[in-house]
Parts: sequence; structure tokens; C-alpha cells
Amino acid sequence: MSEFSYPLHEECGVFGIYDKAGTEDVTAAVYSALYSLQHRGQESCGIAVNDDGVISGYRDLGLVNEVFTPQVLASLSKPEIRMATGHVRYATAGSRIRANAQPMIVRHGRGTMALCHNGNLTNAIQLRTELENEGAIFHGSSDTEVICYLITRERLKSGSIELAVSRTMDKLDGAYSLVIMSSTKLIAVRDPRGYRPLCIGTLPGGGYVFASESCALDAAGADFLRDVEPGEIVIADANGLRSVKDHCGRKDTQMCVFEFIYFARPDSVIEGSSVHEARKQAGRFLAEEHPVEADVVIGVPDSGLDAALGYSEASGIPYGIGFIKNKYIGRTFIQGSQKQRENSVRIKLNAVTSTVKDKRVVLIDDSIVRGTTSARIIKLLRDAGAKEVHFRVSAPPFKYPCYFGTDIPDQKLLVATGRTVAEINEIIGADTLGYLSTEHVVQLAKNSKCGFCTACFTGKYAVKPDQVLSTNIHERHLHDRPKDEKKLGE
Amino acid sequence: MSEFSYPLHEECGVFGIYDKAGTEDVTAAVYSALYSLQHRGQESCGIAVNDDGVISGYRDLGLVNEVFTPQVLASLSKPEIRMATGHVRYATAGSRIRANAQPMIVRHGRGTMALCHNGNLTNAIQLRTELENEGAIFHGSSDTEVICYLITRERLKSGSIELAVSRTMDKLDGAYSLVIMSSTKLIAVRDPRGYRPLCIGTLPGGGYVFASESCALDAAGADFLRDVEPGEIVIADANGLRSVKDHCGRKDTQMCVFEFIYFARPDSVIEGSSVHEARKQAGRFLAEEHPVEADVVIGVPDSGLDAALGYSEASGIPYGIGFIKNKYIGRTFIQGSQKQRENSVRIKLNAVTSTVKDKRVVLIDDSIVRGTTSARIIKLLRDAGAKEVHFRVSAPPFKYPCYFGTDIPDQKLLVATGRTVAEINEIIGADTLGYLSTEHVVQLAKNSKCGFCTACFTGKYAVKPDQVLSTNIHERHLHDRPKDEKKLGE
Amino acid sequence: MSEFSYPLHEECGVFGIYDKAGTEDVTAAVYSALYSLQHRGQESCGIAVNDDGVISGYRDLGLVNEVFTPQVLASLSKPEIRMATGHVRYATAGSRIRANAQPMIVRHGRGTMALCHNGNLTNAIQLRTELENEGAIFHGSSDTEVICYLITRERLKSGSIELAVSRTMDKLDGAYSLVIMSSTKLIAVRDPRGYRPLCIGTLPGGGYVFASESCALDAAGADFLRDVEPGEIVIADANGLRSVKDHCGRKDTQMCVFEFIYFARPDSVIEGSSVHEARKQAGRFLAEEHPVEADVVIGVPDSGLDAALGYSEASGIPYGIGFIKNKYIGRTFIQGSQKQRENSVRIKLNAVTSTVKDKRVVLIDDSIVRGTTSARIIKLLRDAGAKEVHFRVSAPPFKYPCYFGTDIPDQKLLVATGRTVAEINEIIGADTLGYLSTEHVVQLAKNSKCGFCTACFTGKYAVKPDQVLSTNIHERHLHDRPKDEKKLGE
Amino acid sequence: MSEFSYPLHEECGVFGIYDKAGTEDVTAAVYSALYSLQHRGQESCGIAVNDDGVISGYRDLGLVNEVFTPQVLASLSKPEIRMATGHVRYATAGSRIRANAQPMIVRHGRGTMALCHNGNLTNAIQLRTELENEGAIFHGSSDTEVICYLITRERLKSGSIELAVSRTMDKLDGAYSLVIMSSTKLIAVRDPRGYRPLCIGTLPGGGYVFASESCALDAAGADFLRDVEPGEIVIADANGLRSVKDHCGRKDTQMCVFEFIYFARPDSVIEGSSVHEARKQAGRFLAEEHPVEADVVIGVPDSGLDAALGYSEASGIPYGIGFIKNKYIGRTFIQGSQKQRENSVRIKLNAVTSTVKDKRVVLIDDSIVRGTTSARIIKLLRDAGAKEVHFRVSAPPFKYPCYFGTDIPDQKLLVATGRTVAEINEIIGADTLGYLSTEHVVQLAKNSKCGFCTACFTGKYAVKPDQVLSTNIHERHLHDRPKDEKKLGE
Repeated sequence: MSEFSYPLHEECGVFGIYDKAGTEDVTAAVYSALYSLQHRGQESCGIAVNDDGVISGYRDLGLVNEVFTPQVLASLSKPEIRMATGHVRYATAGSRIRANAQPMIVRHGRGTMALCHNGNLTNAIQLRTELENEGAIFHGSSDTEVICYLITRERLKSGSIELAVSRTMDKLDGAYSLVIMSSTKLIAVRDPRGYRPLCIGTLPGGGYVFASESCALDAAGADFLRDVEPGEIVIADANGLRSVKDHCGRKDTQMCVFEFIYFARPDSVIEGSSVHEARKQAGRFLAEEHPVEADVVIGVPDSGLDAALGYSEASGIPYGIGFIKNKYIGRTFIQGSQKQRENSVRIKLNAVTSTVKDKRVVLIDDSIVRGTTSARIIKLLRDAGAKEVHFRVSAPPFKYPCYFGTDIPDQKLLVATGRTVAEINEIIGADTLGYLSTEHVVQLAKNSKCGFCTACFTGKYAVKPDQVLSTNIHERHLHDRPKDEKKLGE
Repeated sequence: MSEFSYPLHEECGVFGIYDKAGTEDVTAAVYSALYSLQHRGQESCGIAVNDDGVISGYRDLGLVNEVFTPQVLASLSKPEIRMATGHVRYATAGSRIRANAQPMIVRHGRGTMALCHNGNLTNAIQLRTELENEGAIFHGSSDTEVICYLITRERLKSGSIELAVSRTMDKLDGAYSLVIMSSTKLIAVRDPRGYRPLCIGTLPGGGYVFASESCALDAAGADFLRDVEPGEIVIADANGLRSVKDHCGRKDTQMCVFEFIYFARPDSVIEGSSVHEARKQAGRFLAEEHPVEADVVIGVPDSGLDAALGYSEASGIPYGIGFIKNKYIGRTFIQGSQKQRENSVRIKLNAVTSTVKDKRVVLIDDSIVRGTTSARIIKLLRDAGAKEVHFRVSAPPFKYPCYFGTDIPDQKLLVATGRTVAEINEIIGADTLGYLSTEHVVQLAKNSKCGFCTACFTGKYAVKPDQVLSTNIHERHLHDRPKDEKKLGE
Repeated sequence: MSEFSYPLHEECGVFGIYDKAGTEDVTAAVYSALYSLQHRGQESCGIAVNDDGVISGYRDLGLVNEVFTPQVLASLSKPEIRMATGHVRYATAGSRIRANAQPMIVRHGRGTMALCHNGNLTNAIQLRTELENEGAIFHGSSDTEVICYLITRERLKSGSIELAVSRTMDKLDGAYSLVIMSSTKLIAVRDPRGYRPLCIGTLPGGGYVFASESCALDAAGADFLRDVEPGEIVIADANGLRSVKDHCGRKDTQMCVFEFIYFARPDSVIEGSSVHEARKQAGRFLAEEHPVEADVVIGVPDSGLDAALGYSEASGIPYGIGFIKNKYIGRTFIQGSQKQRENSVRIKLNAVTSTVKDKRVVLIDDSIVRGTTSARIIKLLRDAGAKEVHFRVSAPPFKYPCYFGTDIPDQKLLVATGRTVAEINEIIGADTLGYLSTEHVVQLAKNSKCGFCTACFTGKYAVKPDQVLSTNIHERHLHDRPKDEKKLGE
Repeated sequence: MSEFSYPLHEECGVFGIYDKAGTEDVTAAVYSALYSLQHRGQESCGIAVNDDGVISGYRDLGLVNEVFTPQVLASLSKPEIRMATGHVRYATAGSRIRANAQPMIVRHGRGTMALCHNGNLTNAIQLRTELENEGAIFHGSSDTEVICYLITRERLKSGSIELAVSRTMDKLDGAYSLVIMSSTKLIAVRDPRGYRPLCIGTLPGGGYVFASESCALDAAGADFLRDVEPGEIVIADANGLRSVKDHCGRKDTQMCVFEFIYFARPDSVIEGSSVHEARKQAGRFLAEEHPVEADVVIGVPDSGLDAALGYSEASGIPYGIGFIKNKYIGRTFIQGSQKQRENSVRIKLNAVTSTVKDKRVVLIDDSIVRGTTSARIIKLLRDAGAKEVHFRVSAPPFKYPCYFGTDIPDQKLLVATGRTVAEINEIIGADTLGYLSTEHVVQLAKNSKCGFCTACFTGKYAVKPDQVLSTNIHERHLHDRPKDEKKLGE
């Protein structure tokens, strides 16, 4: 799937910083980090700051550069601030409301807490119903509010926030990478199966940073220390860094393999493996699985470029720059007429004629979602004079829904569901079509100690949601009219 | 106090509509009603609609015409919608955050509820602390969230929402006029002392409207039925209109007299009395208490005009138009320099020379807050050639804080605190100065069955807040760092 | 015509300041003055400043408070600036383009010039065609660009700018009040018939101000000196103030009488007469011409209030406050449905029931344009319980187009065109209807040495446009395809 | 120079379309084309449309996606429109005013004309002074207005617009590629030396397109026909396409070589040569001129990528992806503190560690302007573990100003001015540094029949401006106070 087709969406990026030495511009560091995590969520963003125990924040719908105007950023900046957290979020259409933007800041019996979440709980409805039955009220529809409630309740019993977090983890199921800020502590949490990435960096002057991806450490001026382990609770405070590992040690860890294929930035290192290198490896495997005689290998920018380079390396076919992407197309691009709509791929992406004219071309992309865009891109190459187009996909066919934080279109829209490779190729119109095998996809990140979730290719889920629904479960729940309300005495 | 000086602020206006016949454009009716209540709150506003039991809404910082763009209004409009509620809010600087905008929509164990609040609880901190100790989390700082929690908890026990509301009222202290929308009912509630107004209208096609002031009924095309009684719960649903009166009947009702003097619109009728008529009556009393030989009576626009007409009527001195107010000065007016700042009253307000030149002028305003603006207005008249300026104030001297929903500046800023009338006049520079007596102020609304709160003049409060603080109590609570957090085990 | 009906539009307000002493914040003074002239034009505005001979400026579509953000205002502010000019403009729909916003700044052979214009030339098309035939190019469609060209060309011949202006006046016909700023001089010009007002003020520290109305002098902190005479050129520079009067002395001066009835602000003094006083006088004349037995006299806010006071004074019938105007209705008010559209007058304006219920009411407005709004306002009063409504209009029936700077709807839309007073009343539905006579309308401003233009009532024009067209003449000219272009050799 | 350093700016992109068959959505085609030309100018843009001879348009400061909102675009769209023109513009800080945005639309004695200009006249001041002395007035500061005047004046004498254009070309000196739209004709003009590119496309249904670059033809759905020749006037109208060639045939044509190195998009074909191919050729020449032992060749995105591929190809050293560019950094990125400012390159650009760690790296960029950014990028690589960094620049050292439409910083800021290559390398800190030779730079576009301007490398200009000034000449002229104004009689 290229960014020009129906997009798959990562749901979130999280970040937190604890500047022990007080030498950083903490708010500016979060702001920079959110820019570097923007690819993980473009619908809303927010920053919460901790000024000597008092937590305040700002969040809104929009990109980082839209939400954080100089005025807003200035209102969150103060030399005294030494702890802050930030979030970028993608949300499905129905839940595109401000109340779901993060960091979520809640006031409770022990003070104030800010919480950032990346992932998706599979038992959110059940937990939410239990809480509602005990008198809880909810302002938004996200499962993040459920986590806040559980931590708050445990904290009333448990005293320390890390103990409350640990007891909350006993109840949560599914995917969650969290950054939590209390009045004195910054805490990172990764679910026991490790669905979503989360890593730790150190600040040159002393202090710690937590981030969804290591590229955010670079942006914030921190040095990579290590990944948070699946199940680990990491606490940064005035006493330094310490871990609670009572949920660590599962054998069936389930890191999302799509992080390597598509979501993460190539300059990030996840579970010990360079994302760029993993994608090049996908290209090398593809060359091995689906070799072809050709004159040039090109990638669909930007997500197909790394794999194209790997394919070129393994096959010996020269690498070329086949497309120029228009940098100025934004969300406001207007498609005037039917004709313009059909033409829109061409405006966003143009073939470099001198690279492909009269050539046999290997074209690499990281997935095919609905097929429409792939068909148009192939046509673009043929219009520019390509003699042959051999399409190679750096992932297996994409067929099943994700319950762990990726927004995937309805199965009916997925071209691979219920079709053979030959049938798919008939739709997209390449000369040959080859997908990466499931065997190879789990070998992309060679240093990883983690296992991988490949359920979107295989349909084999480690855990299923409590009600079998799309990722929009909460929406349905909230917007349905409670059937038994009347019986209750109204 | 004129609108040109440091303003006193009413905190809110509430509105709800239940269109039984399904013949109204319900969302448009709320929109119109909020325009007519805008004078009660200019910092944020919101609308919640109920589409066959499913409640959704939109709220933001800004005026009605800023928040409700055609797109937003269209997203809330549907022919099927038959119930809706709306709110305008003033908020003190510190709490100018979106999370406090209303209607507050909460999801709970029995469905969804939207709630609008005008007033101020005096035991909010105590109630909030109790709730927090039981595991409640708070997203904002307003006491409205406390009310939502209490109703939700009572409902789990009580079944019907009206019973839950009634049990909640047992716990609340202070001022509150509420409009509550559940999936099937629209409910109006007024606190037992009746601090803030709330009235009922009927729709021509069948159905009911609740509003802070009757001018909103006119805007929504409804006919005035009656006021909600102090302590009354009024329920509108498919079965018509009914009342729960178990909190009615207090002898010491305490309607805010400032509603008549300043807050309410002159075309509203509150507790059976026309606000315009009450203000004219204030002018008549003033003419009786503080007569003077003069050539013309003028009012500071707009709030002094009615009383000026009453003074003229009682004294026989001709009424004149003494000032022209600039209609285009908005919130964005820029005061370039010190000089311009001093000049700013003159740009907002200009004297009509032909009315005042060589005349002995009686000048009426509804209050003096800090004195600066009154002084400038008097100077304006002298510069325009007035021979004498006799200042008459249609309320008693304003000296004490309000705990019931009015934002009043710090006592140190009130010119009347600790000064005699003569000393005040020395500051503002009139020839003579006269205030309305406390005896007369409670006789302005002659048809009222309500008693009146005059605590801001007398310092005699029917109930005091649980912690003696300004109206900004919640802010302080939230932004202070909880002192004992560490003891609790972090 | 009230502001709630189809509006008549004044086309412009002009302002200029020369701060000889260098003690003023000149840009802030223009900004304040434009606020006080905003009623003369709400579609675009602009400011040009002269920084030691270098002229720059900013102009855009929008109100003063929309166009002049703090950033924009700061970019025009500098302590060294001692001369500046400003403009507010109304423009008919077709020509609502930025290129027509003023002040117009042009660079020419003798330097730079900024020019502000209020009025309308009647021979603009002829002058423009002559200029085009000599190679001139035009960027916009306004006649202001024609004036700039003529002055520029005369200046190449004449040397001094005042001589160039005088020679240009030989060629211009119609209405024009100009403020012109060169690198060293500020010049005010009024056409020989004096259609539009223009006055002179003095700054306390030394220096001069020119403005369309005296209310702008008050806002800018200047003292009224005198009106610019019809035909006069007034020059302010380092040498003080001087006049060129070679176009003065016409007997048939033609000041627009609608300036007194509707356009100008009541606190302005024009041609020696207070606008407020002139409107009261209109009310007194009305009481004399159309007496009636009644209980209360009320005016449609804001433009009918002064005349209502005059009617009350002359008739002895008490003056009342009959309506409350909603201050928050802006340009963005959305009329959701047909029903809401009909209801819109009621949202903008609400009757004060206690003033009119069971009363015989005299209702004063300054004109009836299409009749629809008047009909709705009368219905408002009847709905509020008025027993009788006697409508009095403080101007004669409005029947003919204006060629001198007022935008008037098509004659077909004017209710008075081709109808008797009785027929008009049938449309608006009052008990009785009375208009001010043409005899009295020219006596409103008792101190005026000027004659008055009453052509919109009588159809007798002192001068007609070169092509008999609506006020949109330039638009038609520009947007029509030149018929003979092809013959010319393309 | 990468886009991350002080940018060099192309001043404009021009576009025109004549849809003979009436089958295109002409406005949408211009809109798409402007997106594809956006890299040539990001400060203002505009579109002018011709609706049956009536020309109207819209232009403003901002990017295409900011200026052309759906409302604005709809206002310019109509099925009947068959001719339109568009422009993107870069402007130096001082002249960043709306009056200079294009297309410039002027009304003159023969109708209306829209004109788009890319380039810079070298005799603009002289021409402007002559026009001013004949009574012309100027609204803006650009030389485009001068061209409009000259064409208008010639047309009054000459009849046909193409003859007027030809006579105007007799007077103009310097660089200009124009697209002109009259009521019935669309005309493309390229100056006799051919400084800026301009090409012709054909529409599938019949009709013609003119564009600065061929990538705009692709976006508009047109097919490349040929370049406009230096000196050629090409007319498209109802009769088809024809040429006036009386200014063609100069031997010393001077196409700007920087179009190939940096300005043009790689997917464009200019003067018969692919821009991508020319850049790859630059890389091949560099490998030949400055070979080095290394492990990987990387380019600075995006402008160094093509040359890096060429270097890799010629040298046999593998090509790598060395950097990830942040796609979300917009113009509103806020640099909080000094620290953040230093860090800003790192946020915009991050090294891919797995590509460069422990490697000897050849780094290719297309120029070095001030040196600061190059130094930071080299440091980025060293921080990521690169063992050696060999910097290769795909152009000669950049030392002299451009008078032909490129905005270049002051010579004092150019690191190459007055320094040897060794001295430059000391500043940027590479292991070795090599520039492309001037001999090779003119051989990049191997099919070109044009000669090349290399004055910015050599200082040898074909023509010099009438006053030796920076490219900001008009600004200085306008903002200086005319010295002799007083003598002229004021």
C-alpha cells in the first residue's frame, strides 16, 4: 500500500521526557519529537507539561504544525518545566472528536495524571461496562479513558502509581504502549505481548526519554538506550530509572510486523533491527522468491524505495528513480471533476520517463490494499513507455482485520480477500505479480528477540476482542441506543 | 457598571427544547436561542442534540457566531432530531479551557446524558473530594462534572433519572439552574433558593422549551408558560410535562437581584416582572431618593437607558440621547499606546454634544465597579460642554463577593469597599452622586413571589462556600500541588 | 429603512492626519478613526502611512477589526511616521475585489501618492476611455484610479500637486470628497457641489486632521475646526494649513440630505448642524405633519431613536424603549430553514412587551425600502400586544436612483416607486402611515449654508451620469466584451 | 545547496491553457498544473480565466493549497471557460506584497489582458522611468507592470497583440518567459537569449498548453509538443497554433544551467534533455573528476539523489539511502530556543544509521551556499558512525549574483566567494571536497541546442542591468525617497 492509495493507519505515537538536570527546553523537545512521530497519527495531537507537579496541557484536532502555533507553544513553555509528554493520534472517522485527543489529563483522588496510549484493548467494552456499573462516567469513546479509570481506582487501594499500573495490567487485554506522567514520575508501559514498539533514550545532561520510535529520540537530542520489554513498567524520576517486570516473560510475544513493513520510519531501530535494513531485506527475499529478467528496479515513493534497493542489490538489476512525488499536495487538494479525480494519482506522482522508457521495469511497493492505486501507478509507467512492469510486494497478501491498533478498511474492500494472486494481477494489470511469503516476513528483523503478529496475513490471532467487531467497536457501543434503558425505570 | 468598565460576568445561560410534534428545526431553534442568551456568557458555547436517543454535540471556546459555522451547524441538523440543549458560558481567565465548555455530554451505565448548568455550587470541593476518594476521575475543573457524577451514581441506585436528580439535590448546596437531556427526557431543575432564573415555554405545535430567560423563548418561537419554581424539577417527554416538587417551598428564596439590575435582557420577564419595567422603577426610586435640578437625563448605553427613562418620568426632567456607542468595536480592538488606552472609552462611546452642551445633566448607570470608567464618562460629558453632571446609580454600592455564579473582581478593586459615597464621588468627579437604597432594590420586581439575594451589597449570605474562597475555588484546588501526594506512597 | 431591511449603503469614509509636532501615534489615530467611520463602509478598509516621504500601506476586504490584526498594525507603526491616511469602503457585489480597496497607492513620475475617495464620478466612463486611448492601463474598476491618473498627468505639466488637483477638478463631474497624501503634503478636496461631507480638525500638539465626519475627529483626539467648503482644496504641510478656492462659490450646492437622515453618525456635526438634532427635528416636523392620538412613541433602533424623541417632544406623547436589539448577530448568522428566515427579524430585534402591550404606539423609522422589514416589525409589535401601530417615516418616500455614491436597490424593489402612501401602508400593515414632506426635509439642518440634493425623493438631478446606468456602471463596462476588439486587428 | 540551507529561489512558474474543443475542466487543469510548478515559487499564486472574452481572476500570497480554497476555485470554474492562465511566484522579502502577485490583469484601450512573467528585466528601471515621465502610474514594484504598459501602448499603435508583443520585445532586455491571455488569444513568449524555459503541449481533444516545465503538461493531461524557441512568439487561438520568429536566431543563447542542476523538477524535459538524466550525468562527471575509495554513495534529499545515483553508476560504489526527510515540517515550524535552532537540521533530516555506520561515505549535494547546512549534514553522518565523508557537489562553486530571475543571497554570504576549495572544506568539515568543473556543467544536457548561462560561477554576463544592483533593484528605487521631488514645485 502506498500513501497514494487507501491508507492503512497506525493509531498513535507516544512520547515522554524527564529532564533530570533541568538543562533542556522540555516543551520544545516534545514538539520536535511529535514532528518525528507525525507519520504515526495525523488527526490530532497534544502535549502535557508538568510544572513542579502541576499538570496542564493542550490538544486539538490537526497536525503538529497546525495545533501548536507559537502562542500555544509559548503557553506551555517555562524554564522550570522538567517533565512533559506528547501524543499524535489517528482516529477513525466516527470518533474524530476532540474529547478523544491525547494526552488525556485526569484529576483524581491522588492528584493529576496525564496518559498517552498507542494500541487497542480487546476487552475494552467489558471493562467499560463494569466501570459504568460502578458509577463511572465517560466523556469520550476511546479505551484510554478506561485505562485512566482503572489506574485511578487501583491507586486508591495501592498507594504507589507503579503498583496501580501493574494491577491494572492484570485486567487489560490487547495492545498498549503507554507513557504516563504523574506529579513526580514519568512511566512507560508496554503490553506483555509487545504489540506496539516503545523505547528508552537518555539525555546527554541526565534524564530519560520514552518514545514509540527511536527517530523521536534523535529529534529530541536523546541517545538510544534500549527497547522497553514486552510487559515491562519503566519508571523515571528523581531517583533515576527502574523497572517492574512482573508482567514480562511471555513466550508468545506478538510485535506487529507491519511496523517494519510500513508504519515505522526507516531511520528507526526497533527491537534491535534497523527498519530500513528490514525493508531492504524484504527486497532481497523478494528477488529470491520472485526473480525476473529486467532493466531497472524502482520503488513507489517513499515506502517502496528501501525494498527496491534490496531487490536491486540481490538481483543485480540497476536501481532507478522512477517517480517524482509532488511535495505540495496537502489535505486540501481539490479534485474538481471526475476527470481530475482519475488524474489525481498523476498529479501526486509522476513517472520519470528517462528512467523507464523502453525498459523492463521491476516495481516495488509495500502492499496492495484495494488495487485501484496500484493499477493507476502501473498505467503511469506504461504511459511513460515502460515495456514490461513486474510488480513485487514487500509483504504477504493482506486479508484480515487488525484488533491491535491498525485501522484497516472493511474486508470487502481488500483486493486480496478471496482472490488468488493471478486474479489480483488481472485487476492491477502488471506483467507479473509477486508477494513476499509469510515465512520470510517474520525474518525481516534479524536481531529481534520478539515474536511477530502476522494475523492480518494469516487470520491467526493471539487474542480476540470480547465482541467480534471492527476496530470501531466503541463507536458502535456508544452510538447505539441502550436497549434496556426504559426497563430501568425511566 | 457599564459594559465599558471592568465587567461583572454572569456565568451562564441554559436552554433546552423538546419538540413533541416534530415540526420544528430543533437545532436552528437552539442556535437562535443561544444568540439571545449570548449576553449571559461569551467565552464558550455548545449544542447537544438527541437523535432518537443518541446524543452528540459540539462545543468550543468562542461566541455563537464563531463556534457554529455552517459546517458545524449542518453536522448537528437532521429533520429527525426532536430534542436538543444548548449553553453559553463565561469562565474566569484561569479556567478558560475547552474541557469546561458545555453542554457536558457523559456516557454512563444507563446511557448518555447532556447537562447544562448556570450557577455555582458552594460545596463543590467537598463533593469532589468525596467522589475522588471513591475512584472518580475529572477531566475539567467545573462543578458541573460533580453534578454529572452524582446524578449518574444515584441513577444506578434509583432507576429513574428524575429520582436520581432529586436525590442529587439533597447533596448540592448553592446556586444551580440545570437543563438535563437523557435519551428520552428533557429536564429542568432550579435550586431550592432559586438563585438563577429558569423558565418554561410551549411550542405552537406542541412541545416544551426551557430557558434561562424568556427572551430566548421569543427567539425560538415559543410562548412563555411560567417560571420554574425554586426547588422544582420539571420533566418534558412523550407524556407531556410534569413536576417533582419535593425540594420546593423554602421561605428564604434568594433570587439574584442583579439579574434585574444588569444581567438579564430588558425584554425578558423574570418571576412575573418585566426587566425593563424593573429598571425604569429603579430610575423612579432614584428620582425620589436623589432629586436634583437639571436640564436633561441621559443613560450610559445600553444598561443605563431604562433607568434614565424612569428617572425622567418621575422627575419631569426631559430624557435625552447622550451617547453614541460604536457598534464595531470587537474583542480584537488594539490599544496601540498608553495615549490610545486612555482614549479608548472615547472611541467606544462618544458624547452627543447637542444633547449636553451648556446643560445640567443627570447621568444614570447601573453600577460603579472600579470607578475609572465612570470618571472617564463624566469627563467625556464635561469635554462636550456639560455644565453640571449628577451621577445616579440604579443599584446600591457594590462591596462583597458573590458565591452564586457572578464573577466579581477582587474586593480591593471595588471602589465602594471601604469608601463613603463622598469619597467615591471624589474619585469619579461628578457634581453629585446618589445610589439606590437597599430598601428599594428589593422592590424593583413588584410581582415577584421570590425573595432576593442582596449579599453583594450587604455581605449577608444565605449560605457560604465550604472553603471561603473566591469563585475561582476549583482552579486553586486543581492547580495547587496536592501536598500529601508523596505520603500516599509514590 | 432600518439596518434590518435591505440596506442602503454609503460608499465610503475617508480620513487623513498630519501630525506636525510628531507627538501622536499617527497609525493608532487612523485606526481609531476608521472604527468611528466604519458605518460608512463595511466591505474593505485600508491605511497608508508616510514614513519620511516613503509611502506604504495595507488594505483588504473586511472590517477594520478583521483587516488590522496586531501584526498588520505593528507593521505600519513607527514613531517617525507623521502623516497617514485611511479609508473604509462599501462596494457593490460585482466589484467586491481587493484591487478596488483604498487608499490607492500609486507610484508615478514625481514620486508616490496615496488617495482616498468618497463619492461617485458621473463622467467616469468618458474619462476612462480617453485615458485608455492614450495608453493607460487599469488594475481595478473604480473611478478612483481615473482620478489618480488625471492628477499624475497634470502634475507632470503643472509641477505642484495642488495645481494638478485643481486642474483635475476642471475635468471631474459628480461627487467626490478626497484625501490625498504625497511625500510631503496632506490634501483634502471636496467637489464644487459638496455632495459628500468632509471636515477639518486640529491636533492639540499642532497638526491637522481631515475626515468624512466629525465623530472621527473625536476618536482621533482632534478638535473640530470647520467643514471643507464645496470646491475647496485644503493643503496641510510643514508650513501649516492653506486653501485653494478656485472651484468654490457655486450657488447650486447639493449636499446629500440622506447624510442627516441615515448615513452619518448622530454625534457628528455636518455643515454646522448636529446630526442628532436634525433627526430630532425630523421627528418634530412629523408630529406636526402627521399627528395622532397615542400612548407611546418608539423608534426602530438605532436609526429611528432620535426622531422618536423629537416626535415625543413635539406631541407630548411619552417616549418609550420599544425594542431590544441583539448585539451579537454578525455577518455569519445562519438562517437554517425557511421558518428561521421568516423568524430572523425577531432574533435580531425583540419587542419590549411592557412598553407596548395594550398601547396605541407611534413607531418611527427613517425610511421604508422594500417594505418587508417594516411589515415584520409592525407584526412584532402587534404580537407583543400593541393595540394600534402608527408608522411615521422621518424622510419622504424613496423612489429614484442615486448617482453620487449611495448604493440603492433596483427601482423595482423600492416599495414607494409607483405606489401611493395608502398602497404602501396596505403592504406594511400599520394603522396609519405618514412620511416627512420634501419641504421639511431640506430644513432639518438649520445652520447649513449648503443646498441639498433630494433627487432620490424627487428625481431632479443636478447632473446626470454620462451614460444612464445604475451605480454599477464601471462593472458593466469592464465585464462586457469590447465589441470592436476584433476590428482592431487581432 | 539543499532545501535545508539558505535557499536559492527561482522566481516564477507560468502556465496557460487554450481548450479548443471545450472538453476540459480548464480551471482544474490550471490548478493541477500550479501544484506541479509550486517548486518554482512559493510566496504567491494566481489564476486568471477567460469566460467568452471576459477575464477575471484571483491571486494572493500563499501556496496553491492555501490560496485556492474550494470556494475560490468554484468561483473561477464554469463549463464555458476555455482559456486560462496561472502563475506561482517567489518574491524577495521586501516586495512580498499582494500587488505584485500574478497573473497581472489589466484593462486597457483594447480590452483586458492577463500576463504571467518568469524572469527579470535588466533595463526595467530605465523603461519604468520613461513610462512615468509620460504619465504612467504604477501600483506595484514588479517589472511585469512595465511589460503590460509597453504592450498596451504598442497595441494602440499596432493593432494586433502579437505585433504589439514583438515591438515590445525590441525594448526589453534580460530574461522573460511570458504567457499572455487576451480576450481571444493565448500567447507564449520567450526572450531571445532563452534564459528561462517554456514549452508547448497539446490537449488530447484539441487545444494547447504553455508551461514553464513539462511536468506541468503531465499534471494537466497534455502531451509534450516542443520547447518555445528563444525569441519566439507562439499564438494559440481558434485558428490553431502559429509563430512569430522575428526575434529568434541569436547565436549567444543563454539558458540558465541551474534549471538543470536545481530548479526544475527531475521529471521535466527541457531543451530536449531529461532533467533527471542531466543530474545523473553530473554525478557521472563528478565520479570521473573526483574519484574516491568508498563503501556507499548517498545524496542529500531530494536534490542530491539523482547525482548520487550517477556517481554510484560511474564509480561502481553502491548507492544507499542515507537520510530520511521529515515530510511534516512546514513553514510554521517553531524553533524554540538556540539549542533547538542548532538542532533543526536534525529534525528535518535524520541519518539512516544502518546505511552509514562504519562506512566510508560519498555524499552528494547540488551546491553549497553558506556552508552552515553542509557542515551540519556532515556532522549528522559522523554522529551516525560514518568513518569518512567525501563531499561532492554537482555544480561549480557558486560565487556571483544572478540578474535573470534567481534570488541569490548577498555575495558576502556565499562561502565560495574568495575562498579556495580547501578553505571551503575547512568550514564544512568533510574528509575531501570536490566540485563539478565549469567545462562539464555545460555538457549536462546533451541534446540541448541552447547555449548556457554560467555567470553565477564565472561572473561573465551576457548583459548587465542598467544600474548595477542586486535583484532587488525595483524595491530600492521605489522605497527611496525621490530626491528631486521638491525642486519640481511642491
